[in-house]
Amino acid sequence: MNWEAVLLNNPIYIDINIFYVNVLSRKKVMQIGIDSFVELSLDPANRGTVDPAQRVRDLLEEIELADQVGLQVFGIGEHHRPEFVASAPAVILAAAAARTKRIRLASAVSVLSSEDPVRLFQQFATLDLISQGRAEIIVGRGSFIESYPLFGFDLEDYDSLFAEKLDLLLKIRENIHVHWSGKYRPPLTGQGVYPRPGQNPLPIRLGVGGTPHSFARAGMLGLPLTVAIIGGEPRRFRPLIDLYRDAGRQAGHSAETDSPAAKAPTSSRPTGLDVSIHSVGFIGDTTKQAADEFYPPYAQIFGRIGKERGWPPITRAQFDATCRPTGALLVGDPESIAEKILYENEVLGGISRMTILLNGGVIPHKKAMHAIELLGTRVAPMVKNELKFRGEPHHEATEVFSLADH
Amino acid sequence: MNWEAVLLNNPIYIDINIFYVNVLSRKKVMQIGIDSFVELSLDPANRGTVDPAQRVRDLLEEIELADQVGLQVFGIGEHHRPEFVASAPAVILAAAAARTKRIRLASAVSVLSSEDPVRLFQQFATLDLISQGRAEIIVGRGSFIESYPLFGFDLEDYDSLFAEKLDLLLKIRENIHVHWSGKYRPPLTGQGVYPRPGQNPLPIRLGVGGTPHSFARAGMLGLPLTVAIIGGEPRRFRPLIDLYRDAGRQAGHSAETDSPAAKAPTSSRPTGLDVSIHSVGFIGDTTKQAADEFYPPYAQIFGRIGKERGWPPITRAQFDATCRPTGALLVGDPESIAEKILYENEVLGGISRMTILLNGGVIPHKKAMHAIELLGTRVAPMVKNELKFRGEPHHEATEVFSLADH
Repeated sequence: MNWEAVLLNNPIYIDINIFYVNVLSRKKVMQIGIDSFVELSLDPANRGTVDPAQRVRDLLEEIELADQVGLQVFGIGEHHRPEFVASAPAVILAAAAARTKRIRLASAVSVLSSEDPVRLFQQFATLDLISQGRAEIIVGRGSFIESYPLFGFDLEDYDSLFAEKLDLLLKIRENIHVHWSGKYRPPLTGQGVYPRPGQNPLPIRLGVGGTPHSFARAGMLGLPLTVAIIGGEPRRFRPLIDLYRDAGRQAGHSAETDSPAAKAPTSSRPTGLDVSIHSVGFIGDTTKQAADEFYPPYAQIFGRIGKERGWPPITRAQFDATCRPTGALLVGDPESIAEKILYENEVLGGISRMTILLNGGVIPHKKAMHAIELLGTRVAPMVKNELKFRGEPHHEATEVFSLADH
Repeated sequence: MNWEAVLLNNPIYIDINIFYVNVLSRKKVMQIGIDSFVELSLDPANRGTVDPAQRVRDLLEEIELADQVGLQVFGIGEHHRPEFVASAPAVILAAAAARTKRIRLASAVSVLSSEDPVRLFQQFATLDLISQGRAEIIVGRGSFIESYPLFGFDLEDYDSLFAEKLDLLLKIRENIHVHWSGKYRPPLTGQGVYPRPGQNPLPIRLGVGGTPHSFARAGMLGLPLTVAIIGGEPRRFRPLIDLYRDAGRQAGHSAETDSPAAKAPTSSRPTGLDVSIHSVGFIGDTTKQAADEFYPPYAQIFGRIGKERGWPPITRAQFDATCRPTGALLVGDPESIAEKILYENEVLGGISRMTILLNGGVIPHKKAMHAIELLGTRVAPMVKNELKFRGEPHHEATEVFSLADH
């Protein structure tokens, strides 16, 4: 009997069909999650948390809640600045791993250019063992530059540092005993790198901003991509994402993402072409309330960054414009956030994941918790139901097993 | 009224007296704990765990139990070998921090010579925030040498690497913005190192083996000391410990350890002269059973290490000799372990902490759990009661607050 034909053509088997599409054929699924830099308020008048120990306590509650409401990934970004607690993402994620069951735990990003790939791999392999297979490394060149002088690297080598270290990181993922030599790190002559992770291969994604070369490189390497879209209009990123997909296909990589769990234990091929978006945003009960509550911390953080980078001052008018349906900020009520995620999925040619930076430390903890709850219980179901209605793959592999109980 | 005289002379106030001795005068207290390298069995026939994910699950249960039975410190040692999972101690300790309440969490040791002091400090400062002030760094030159070629350092610089990196680590502990230059690491010209820990100063201990220079250095720097005594007779370490104490006193350091919590927030002076012992051992219901159960995994691990180092083969006779009352191995029933801890405290001139490496991964998890339970519920109370009887300080500062409930 041709089970495939039976399953695909019989409406009674719609759920099993989804099982087939998502698990048996291992298509991409849309994941929704949160990112954090573990922000501190440097200005207590601005209502944010100023004590780093309190901020870490709050953060762990936020990750725990994200797990409980079914969000699928939590990312922690590496920074070396007084207003961000997270300079050692794997350490924070390990604490989160011990308090969560299903949520994936990622760096977002690890500044690979100024890091030792051996140490980075060891930390995330350890996290992977602790979390029973939920670790991911997202590597980038970094949007901030403090880590370069701190670890003795030259900003003039910004890209060649990244290329060389990425090469080594991928080699370590592929081999226990590594033979490698390069310009920026002592050679390896067969030394073993331990421990080995539970997932094989350990997922490694490339985090990029707006540099075309970064998109092309990720495609050529067949690595999954995370694009930071923190301003302007997301649809403008489509040509860059197309560049990634074209470069990937030309290099012979598949557009389908395999579930890492499905890999043979000794396999180490890339996890496939796949586009994830990192956004800035905040979810409230109403769109007006969300915007009013989010603007002050947004203006505080982006105003400070903008000053350093020579951006024009933040204005409420510009903020409101970027909150509109085609703008980059995911600020609003659950319905408008769901619509914007679906819109980005549409205009960017399909995305596998959307994560939102809530600026949690500067936003009061209670409000961050409420936003996480809304994202998990309201936004995510709307997005998944709409994708299901459209017949696009939307289920998590782990959710599928509940079908057996129906 | 002279409260001091009243308290010290009135037998009714014996508990308050202990409060006075231990908290008000901030004398040393004896802590008892466990160390682990997160050992794996490379030989499944030897009954040990071979799956690193399972081993990490078991380890976290062991640390949780150690906390529950009142043990005061759990140390994780950095290694870069297939049979030890722990190459990134801070990541494992962060998971443990999320599952425990009171136990202190230490590296035992961090191989500082091949590590970047900035990253090390960042990781343990983060752990300190996660654990709400329970982190400690124990730094050493390393007993194994794999980390040197792995991170591109020359074994010929074994000691100068350590000296230079310790200097930097202490500077980072003292200053947010660091000005420093050395031979083995790019200079710092005022860069900030974040996050800052909750404890100030973050406890940093020196882990040493049998090298006289290491004892003298720790004393001169006024840093607390952890001595690894894994073979022979502990009393033979007395001259080295005296060297440490003499060097410390000559350099003007106090022999009393202040509780880190008692420090003014901006203070960063050393935490004082203080001797802790790291031992190898196993606790069973009877001494014979403990020895019979511990010998095979002991012979497996030390046999393998000995082969690499050219030691004579391990024999049961030699093992049994080292288990005797004056030998280094803490193998036996609770009474004999308590006696040996008191004996070492006596012959070494007072120790503040005893930690035992159970070789947990090679010992079956169930037996490791039982040993931890015996150490916390039987051995530790015997040691503390005996010290109390002798009038020596023995209470934990945190325990003292329970006096208010009496």
